[in-house]
Amino acid sequence: MYRTHTCGELRAENIGNSVTLSGWVQKARVLGGMSFVDLRDRYGITQLVFDDSKNADVAKQAQELGREFVISITGEVIERQSKNSKMSTGDIEIVVDKLTILNKSEIPPFTIEDNTDGGDELRMKYRYLDLRRAPLQKALELRHKMGIEVRTFLHNQGFYEIETPYLIKSTPEGARDFVVPSRMNSNQFYALPQSPQTFKQLLMIAGYDKYFQIVKCFRDEDLRADRQPEFTQIDCEMAFVERDDILNMFENLAKHLFKSIKGFSYDGDFPKMAYSQAIEQYGNDKPDTRFGMLFNDITEMVHGKGFVVFDSAEYVAGICAEGLASYSRKELDKLIDFVKKPQIGAKGLVYVKVNEDGTFKSSVDKFFDANEQKAWAEKMGAKPGDLLLILAGNKRQTQSALSELRLEMGSRLGLMDKNTYSPLWVVDFPLLEWDEKSGRFHAMHHPFTSPKPEDLQLFDTDPGKMNANAYDLVINGVEIGGGSIRIHDKDLQAKMFKALGFSKEEAEEQFGFLMNAFKYGAPPHGGVAFGFDRWVSLFAGFDSIRDTIAFPKNNSGRDVMIDSPSNIAPEQLNELNLSLTKPTE
Amino acid sequence: MYRTHTCGELRAENIGNSVTLSGWVQKARVLGGMSFVDLRDRYGITQLVFDDSKNADVAKQAQELGREFVISITGEVIERQSKNSKMSTGDIEIVVDKLTILNKSEIPPFTIEDNTDGGDELRMKYRYLDLRRAPLQKALELRHKMGIEVRTFLHNQGFYEIETPYLIKSTPEGARDFVVPSRMNSNQFYALPQSPQTFKQLLMIAGYDKYFQIVKCFRDEDLRADRQPEFTQIDCEMAFVERDDILNMFENLAKHLFKSIKGFSYDGDFPKMAYSQAIEQYGNDKPDTRFGMLFNDITEMVHGKGFVVFDSAEYVAGICAEGLASYSRKELDKLIDFVKKPQIGAKGLVYVKVNEDGTFKSSVDKFFDANEQKAWAEKMGAKPGDLLLILAGNKRQTQSALSELRLEMGSRLGLMDKNTYSPLWVVDFPLLEWDEKSGRFHAMHHPFTSPKPEDLQLFDTDPGKMNANAYDLVINGVEIGGGSIRIHDKDLQAKMFKALGFSKEEAEEQFGFLMNAFKYGAPPHGGVAFGFDRWVSLFAGFDSIRDTIAFPKNNSGRDVMIDSPSNIAPEQLNELNLSLTKPTE
Repeated sequence: MYRTHTCGELRAENIGNSVTLSGWVQKARVLGGMSFVDLRDRYGITQLVFDDSKNADVAKQAQELGREFVISITGEVIERQSKNSKMSTGDIEIVVDKLTILNKSEIPPFTIEDNTDGGDELRMKYRYLDLRRAPLQKALELRHKMGIEVRTFLHNQGFYEIETPYLIKSTPEGARDFVVPSRMNSNQFYALPQSPQTFKQLLMIAGYDKYFQIVKCFRDEDLRADRQPEFTQIDCEMAFVERDDILNMFENLAKHLFKSIKGFSYDGDFPKMAYSQAIEQYGNDKPDTRFGMLFNDITEMVHGKGFVVFDSAEYVAGICAEGLASYSRKELDKLIDFVKKPQIGAKGLVYVKVNEDGTFKSSVDKFFDANEQKAWAEKMGAKPGDLLLILAGNKRQTQSALSELRLEMGSRLGLMDKNTYSPLWVVDFPLLEWDEKSGRFHAMHHPFTSPKPEDLQLFDTDPGKMNANAYDLVINGVEIGGGSIRIHDKDLQAKMFKALGFSKEEAEEQFGFLMNAFKYGAPPHGGVAFGFDRWVSLFAGFDSIRDTIAFPKNNSGRDVMIDSPSNIAPEQLNELNLSLTKPTE
Repeated sequence: MYRTHTCGELRAENIGNSVTLSGWVQKARVLGGMSFVDLRDRYGITQLVFDDSKNADVAKQAQELGREFVISITGEVIERQSKNSKMSTGDIEIVVDKLTILNKSEIPPFTIEDNTDGGDELRMKYRYLDLRRAPLQKALELRHKMGIEVRTFLHNQGFYEIETPYLIKSTPEGARDFVVPSRMNSNQFYALPQSPQTFKQLLMIAGYDKYFQIVKCFRDEDLRADRQPEFTQIDCEMAFVERDDILNMFENLAKHLFKSIKGFSYDGDFPKMAYSQAIEQYGNDKPDTRFGMLFNDITEMVHGKGFVVFDSAEYVAGICAEGLASYSRKELDKLIDFVKKPQIGAKGLVYVKVNEDGTFKSSVDKFFDANEQKAWAEKMGAKPGDLLLILAGNKRQTQSALSELRLEMGSRLGLMDKNTYSPLWVVDFPLLEWDEKSGRFHAMHHPFTSPKPEDLQLFDTDPGKMNANAYDLVINGVEIGGGSIRIHDKDLQAKMFKALGFSKEEAEEQFGFLMNAFKYGAPPHGGVAFGFDRWVSLFAGFDSIRDTIAFPKNNSGRDVMIDSPSNIAPEQLNELNLSLTKPTE
């Protein structure tokens, strides 16, 4: 038997017990004739004492112990002289009678501490060591608990978790698929699912009523910092529902997670905001509503005063940063540099200091007098001591840049507390987006999203004006999930494919099974999918999803630990009737 | 709002309520001025009444309803005249005031009844309709509930569910991998996991102590009736354990499932049987222990009596089929045909009738007298009225054929009740199997399985004699799961790879990350993986796993509903730097 207790379990009431523990050597230090070892496992750390005067052999053995050795010990629990109130086992220590070294360890390439000295690539290569660190262990524990709570909640609401296939069919719509060559069906390929979308709709048609699945999805995209080629969704669908039935159900799921995981009670309903309002007020369809600092459109107020930047701008708008009139020239210059960064893309920044003494100081004093600046300040609800920050230019780009600036200022002003959760439903998204390049509409959500019932009449006259019966759940500026009421009528679905530029044959080839299913009594239905990695990351207080995933890939889609992807044997390619068209470097 | 209640919910106490229901038309029939419709959803069936004399318009509308139409109705719950005690809603019916046809249905290609008239291929093509049938709905509900119970049990035992990657690395060991070409890493491929084996071992090395995952796995094998290219495992691993710690834990999981799902309490410990005993007594490493009918080796007793079939046989053994001495010549001939089928492979069958009057009648009366036959009967524990069935030949093949015959006789004698569960741990498997063809050892389980501690000394002298520290859970002759204590010592692992014919370079290239991880304090660990599809199938009483899976593939690995796998666009191949080497037919 390797242990009677874990390393996080022993308390004062165990004093006098003989116990056996196993774990890793976190730290070992010698003090005169005594050695002290911190023994670690998933559950905690327990201090071991090796006393030369009591058991010289074992004490001698203990001097060989290095960091990360795996050992098993037997000994007596005694009261600790210098108690450590920061450790759950801090009242006791164990005088060791018997020590077995289960496995030695080379010196790890980085320290196994909360703050390690290892760099990113090194930690990815030795992920199994990085995963020993407490912040990662806590993140994976959190992920497990969130999974349990999601399942418990949805099970209690009558949902079935139903597994959908991973080897499905490639469709050119949406992001790029990962494909899997089939050996048994020569020259043909499966695709890995980007989502179980069509399958969950088929389950509704099959009468399963309430479906969910915590499921891996795959996208072969060029990776950004917060993307992974494989990611996990909480995928859900319900039949016989209208939009608000779905919002209520999953608002309650979110509240359940707030409460059970974070101990946070959210009172009342989550606010709903139209997409258009989110763009106008936050420049962003996933606004961080932990703080205000809304956009103020002053285009009309500033045109025609001879300042060419404003005069030539389609859109001029500003935000009010509370209490920052005291910013120095240097601080303002840094802000200007910030907005000019390529990823923000503004050409410049106009500031107005609303001084405590009632005067104004701005970078455009030459063009606008105090009264004009005062009118802006009033429009923006500024108080003495505040700072107005104004951007101008093309409307969409300026909104986007101002959104970044707002988040930067929110962060500087400490308005983005990680322990505050501000959820929001964003609704009424446009159904279709016109794509200049391809000269056709694209589905903003996906081709199965229903228009809002009241907009159906626009389909033949002004399809670009239709709103989708779609919704996103945004928490603290993070899009946690999104979904829609689906089309369940075969004629409407056909019309939709046509609007998206599918020929009848293409629609049939790719989605014929779904169109066919609609012929046999498809119920009204809708659903939602949540990004599980992101939700865990939000609750963990991480800036990236990477450390919510046990074995993530790097930005080239590589697992550097197992060194994958890798070359495969020529026989494997032969069996698949495939050849490489480029020489391997 | 589409409904106030489900179709399985209304009872006598709801009489007088006005309710709204939605669902599918299961049946519609007209009786004079009345129409009756059975409305179906996942929760049950409710009878609707349309009364011409009360609401002529709605009654007229109801006459348009066909099978599988999706409707929503509002009406009053009334007491049913002819109550139906077989239906949970059989005390009531609903007089309909308002009817909305939500979607029409064409006539389904087969009946949506417990026993349908649809053939296999048709039902696969219209899987979304087949899934409407109650036996499939019940199977998916069972699967969901088993998933919930597995997770609840393991969570309560301190396991974390941790997701491991799907895009991993191809290894030539074991079955054939499905591979996934990488676009970002030209000429390189991921593989889909056959199991998360190495990752769960890394999680033990990383200190997660108890891991599980209900996870899809993939094998590109030629498919038999009960195989799918993608299948689901309950994958588990524990650190600091010996074999019996694992057996206890998962025996308790099995008992929890027996109890919570089937209401069956299993008392005491599951029996353990050595692999060698299973083969000797049942000819099979997954014996069905719901009944006895053990093998009796009579080789010694029958040699040298001039019957050439026995004399030339390495092995002669029989079973005793209780009470079947009355079998007619015709019935015995059929049994002979049965054992001669190619998949059974016996050359013939010797029978001995142990007659009620104390005489014997056998097919070898010419060679063996009554005393000799009596000795066999005694050896096999036969009573008057029993029938001895004897096979002879090469030992391994004869054991295998006799095993099939035993199961056939068990089935005929009604000894294989689907509501009885007879679990068994099969232990002490051989570690290595000698493969004549390749002239080297193969791992019977996998290369990470540890030898039994007491057999370690045989590694250098007689490796083929070593037993593995491995175990299978067998229930009713179905291998539900299996696992082993793993190797955690880098030198032993290197020795194992060498014994399996890996060069140092091959071992390093394929499993270097694991060998490397063993250097940094790998704890003793072991685990188990259960076939979730099979376990559900066992509890559902199905003979195949197919209907425990929402969207299975056929024996060619095709999803005939979505028509996958399929051709992909030439641009997709180009992006992957791949070309097809054979023309597409």
